[in-house]
Amino acid sequence: MSQGEKMSPRISTELLRQLRQAMRNSKYITEPIQAYIVPSGDAHQSEYIAPCDCRREFICGFNGSAGTAIVTEQHAAMWTDGRYFLQAGNQMDSNWTVMKMGLKETPSQEDWLISVLPDGSRVGVDPWIIAADQWKIMSKALTRAGHSLVPIKDNLIDAIWVDRPARPVSPLITLALNYTGMSWQDKITALRAKMSERKITWFVVTALDEIAWLFNLRGSDIEYNPVFFAYAVVGKSSIRLFIDHRRIADLAVRDHLQLDTPGKAELSVQIFAYESIFPELQALCASLGHKEKVWISDKASWALTDVIPKTHRSPIPYTPLCLAKAVKNETEIKGMKMAHIKDAVALCELFVWLEKEIPKGTVTEISAADKAEELRSQQKDFVGLSFPTISSVGPNAAIIHYKPLPETNRTLSLNEVYLIDSGAQFKDGTTDVTRTMHFGTPSAYEKECFTYVLKGHIAVSAAVFPNGTRGHLLDSFARSALWESGLDYLHGTGHGVGCFLNVHEGPCGISYKTFADEPLEAGMIVSDEPGYYEDGSFGLRIENVVLVVPAKPKYNYRNRGSLTFDPITLVPIQLKMINVDMLTQKERDWLNEYHRMCREVVGAELERQGRKEALDWLFRETQPIA
Amino acid sequence: MSQGEKMSPRISTELLRQLRQAMRNSKYITEPIQAYIVPSGDAHQSEYIAPCDCRREFICGFNGSAGTAIVTEQHAAMWTDGRYFLQAGNQMDSNWTVMKMGLKETPSQEDWLISVLPDGSRVGVDPWIIAADQWKIMSKALTRAGHSLVPIKDNLIDAIWVDRPARPVSPLITLALNYTGMSWQDKITALRAKMSERKITWFVVTALDEIAWLFNLRGSDIEYNPVFFAYAVVGKSSIRLFIDHRRIADLAVRDHLQLDTPGKAELSVQIFAYESIFPELQALCASLGHKEKVWISDKASWALTDVIPKTHRSPIPYTPLCLAKAVKNETEIKGMKMAHIKDAVALCELFVWLEKEIPKGTVTEISAADKAEELRSQQKDFVGLSFPTISSVGPNAAIIHYKPLPETNRTLSLNEVYLIDSGAQFKDGTTDVTRTMHFGTPSAYEKECFTYVLKGHIAVSAAVFPNGTRGHLLDSFARSALWESGLDYLHGTGHGVGCFLNVHEGPCGISYKTFADEPLEAGMIVSDEPGYYEDGSFGLRIENVVLVVPAKPKYNYRNRGSLTFDPITLVPIQLKMINVDMLTQKERDWLNEYHRMCREVVGAELERQGRKEALDWLFRETQPIA
Repeated sequence: MSQGEKMSPRISTELLRQLRQAMRNSKYITEPIQAYIVPSGDAHQSEYIAPCDCRREFICGFNGSAGTAIVTEQHAAMWTDGRYFLQAGNQMDSNWTVMKMGLKETPSQEDWLISVLPDGSRVGVDPWIIAADQWKIMSKALTRAGHSLVPIKDNLIDAIWVDRPARPVSPLITLALNYTGMSWQDKITALRAKMSERKITWFVVTALDEIAWLFNLRGSDIEYNPVFFAYAVVGKSSIRLFIDHRRIADLAVRDHLQLDTPGKAELSVQIFAYESIFPELQALCASLGHKEKVWISDKASWALTDVIPKTHRSPIPYTPLCLAKAVKNETEIKGMKMAHIKDAVALCELFVWLEKEIPKGTVTEISAADKAEELRSQQKDFVGLSFPTISSVGPNAAIIHYKPLPETNRTLSLNEVYLIDSGAQFKDGTTDVTRTMHFGTPSAYEKECFTYVLKGHIAVSAAVFPNGTRGHLLDSFARSALWESGLDYLHGTGHGVGCFLNVHEGPCGISYKTFADEPLEAGMIVSDEPGYYEDGSFGLRIENVVLVVPAKPKYNYRNRGSLTFDPITLVPIQLKMINVDMLTQKERDWLNEYHRMCREVVGAELERQGRKEALDWLFRETQPIA
Repeated sequence: MSQGEKMSPRISTELLRQLRQAMRNSKYITEPIQAYIVPSGDAHQSEYIAPCDCRREFICGFNGSAGTAIVTEQHAAMWTDGRYFLQAGNQMDSNWTVMKMGLKETPSQEDWLISVLPDGSRVGVDPWIIAADQWKIMSKALTRAGHSLVPIKDNLIDAIWVDRPARPVSPLITLALNYTGMSWQDKITALRAKMSERKITWFVVTALDEIAWLFNLRGSDIEYNPVFFAYAVVGKSSIRLFIDHRRIADLAVRDHLQLDTPGKAELSVQIFAYESIFPELQALCASLGHKEKVWISDKASWALTDVIPKTHRSPIPYTPLCLAKAVKNETEIKGMKMAHIKDAVALCELFVWLEKEIPKGTVTEISAADKAEELRSQQKDFVGLSFPTISSVGPNAAIIHYKPLPETNRTLSLNEVYLIDSGAQFKDGTTDVTRTMHFGTPSAYEKECFTYVLKGHIAVSAAVFPNGTRGHLLDSFARSALWESGLDYLHGTGHGVGCFLNVHEGPCGISYKTFADEPLEAGMIVSDEPGYYEDGSFGLRIENVVLVVPAKPKYNYRNRGSLTFDPITLVPIQLKMINVDMLTQKERDWLNEYHRMCREVVGAELERQGRKEALDWLFRETQPIA
């Protein structure tokens, strides 16, 4: 994601020759393999990855966020989804075939392999970058068809990747209690309580955001994601952190982790080299007692999963850290709110600037995105962006995952709708907000569609629902108004948001696509972002980050209690885009109350920061509607 | 379900002694088993079962619709869900433990077995009455723990059940084209087209309603369900029907199946004995070619599933017959509509009668249910009820699966709400309708709750949604108004309904509990039945059967097309129960239009049948609201 969409295809003939040679090279493998799978993830199954882990891009040229390449002696094919069919075709040369997932005629990776491989073939994959659940599906299918899936310890792409970047060792940031609300020692203690409740001896932590959250540390190894490469193994009376030793040379970090002044033995952190997770886990498993159990995410790498003997392994879909991290404590909620207020200040300034500059014809999608970043960076505790800014005008905004590039860059005008989906990492919180604005006069049809989207946004934001409700059950509320007019959008409605962590995090969300999401709980934070996209013409989306809070309706059936959402994002929703006649009284009341909050809360901060012009703009944009 | 809830526990000591003896008896088993599982289903995984298949009830006394009994040398335990905790406790003696499913502390059957069994135990089950997917889960868990799940060919309950009823061989009804809209020959041809599309050689049909639908035959082997015991195996050029030979002695049946005048070879039906399915399938599988595949439902019995070698077996969650049967053709839709008009006639008559009789204090839940049955039976093509009538007053109506029994029977009065959920089998269609009425003056709170339920009912019935939407995505629409006030109901919103077939059928429905339901399609028929239940006080439910029809909204996003529902049930919704102030204009319009349809369509039929009093009642009850 970090490198933009290059539009000329990578020449892959020589690379493929080298890879096929490696597939037969006894230096790496005991017996030749007939196919090699290159997944897109890293060893921690991160959504965003560091340059050193962009192996699939290296071999085929395609740099979208999702895709798996498979190379056999004769073929080279790459599976990706509908967002990327065009881009993949542009970025790969004719050695490669785009396998269009979701189309009826496209075979699965397993079926394709079975159809092209000679009998009894060996299919190789790096067990560190394939998730355990994926490994199992692939292995089962291949075995059934008389082939086998074999783990290749040395990564064959790394073997041929001459100028492969080094794994980052960015400096660590320590977060004190005023940012985290809970010391890492208390988090360990809470985790151990969960472990002993479920009779678990060890927990192998592999997700980077879980490790960062657990130790109240942040890094910048992966762009937009304040995480660092590490593993952790937590036992009943020991804590092992696997991390490059250069990162803990810093005195602040040593102090934070109490490395030099160990207190209680069970709360002292033992440091191991990042790479030694494998032998250490092996040794630890060798000494496991009869009924001892080890927790590991079912999405952890097959390499680490396989180290734990089956009888001791207890794979879980959502780890207790994932669940604990999702429910924000008071300090985190305060931080997230503050971060969004600062974010709102930057966006108010941006919109003031755009109003002045657009008529001059000099603002482009890229310069607007740059201006937004500049304005955000003026705010306290700014660290960086939380994802690549989607800054898009007219037809470009109909491309849901659009990022402006020099060759697609459009100029903002008074005639087209502008959509900006952007966010930042602040030390106190992570932001994510989408606003859709017209700086001239929107058409009646644009307003009509925008108003459907607004009705959907409000339907979710104002929904009251019982404790224990899963987010996917709210997804249709966001679509109801669009559906009634025959419209829809082809993405989910919301995702969990981390606190100075990944902008996408589990285990909750609001999407028709999932079913295994965990129930919403007070303190969870998700986005609410319905949209509408008219291909070749315009794109609309309204996104707030919202906090799950207890609701107090009239009754309380079976004492279950109720929940609703409080908006954390406080940026005006452009009135000019709304067809007020289409709103019910309840929807008007919601909008007026929302704008009152924006005016009050963000207004106070604009005033404090002496941003007079933006304050005037805010007042103008938050006038109540009748 | 057919035998009511007996309230005194079965004395099981002697039965358990005999069963435990059988578990060691070499007459039935080669090696003793340490536990025996008694599931509640029959060999076709039917929801309702015949008396000869009520084995779980026989051994433990509990006769609810869901429950699994397990007997070990020391223990006897029975797993059931929240609907039945009380009933199970009342019906079983102290030899048994009720295992309350859904409670945190209740172990799964596997976990419980593992905790009580000695090392290396053998757990037996009749492979005919355990579904393949269940077998796999249980077998895997036991094997992992060092035990094994073994199929016991002779059913051990049957072995000790002295006066076990015979398997029914009710006469068959043949349905002509004017009822089915499609000949069985055309259904076979359509099925074969699906089979050849997916390269399937054989399809083993095990679900009783699929066999009945395929051959346009009905029976009455299971109360309320017009099905008959049979299996079918369809190949590219042969059709095998496994059925008791006495049933095809009837000339009308022989003629219908063209047994004596075979036409084309590939459309001639070969008759085999019901029991010979096993050896015949075995023989057929022995002659399968290298890549030949056999379809079987993944919910078919383990016995039949296991006969098909793994390499040839292709288990499917929803068979093509299940899918084809769910989408009703024009004749079936016409029949379902006619059945519901006749049903409405009977219910209008019932309500007229209740208005007159209740003040006398002589009407009970049971006599009201009997009257409803009597009135339905006066209608053309009436065959029987489609499920046991739920006729319930006041607090009894808060018990969702209530059936009146002499010991619980309440008298209807002017002071309590009355809920009747009932339906019938007519030769042209199956009905299912719930109305909640007050014959005096409902309280403000009862009206408030009823109006929430009505809002939910309308929200589903009037919903417009894209083609391809799964029913579970509509479930929250039914709850939104209740949720807003802190209320809810703990059952799904709707189920598929057969056409002169089972009143519950897959693969579609409207429930938060499912995720794997098939997308809704025009021609499918489901129920829309939100409710609200106040324990110890009252129960409310409004149920219509509705038809999925194309909708024509303003726009047509990506040419996907839209769907909505047309009510098929046409019985007035009592205005007295509604707080009109709580309804939006759209909801009022929906209700007025619905009542206009009731008046017009059912009114015409009442007139035709000369039912003057009911016609007056209908006119009074369908006056438009302001």
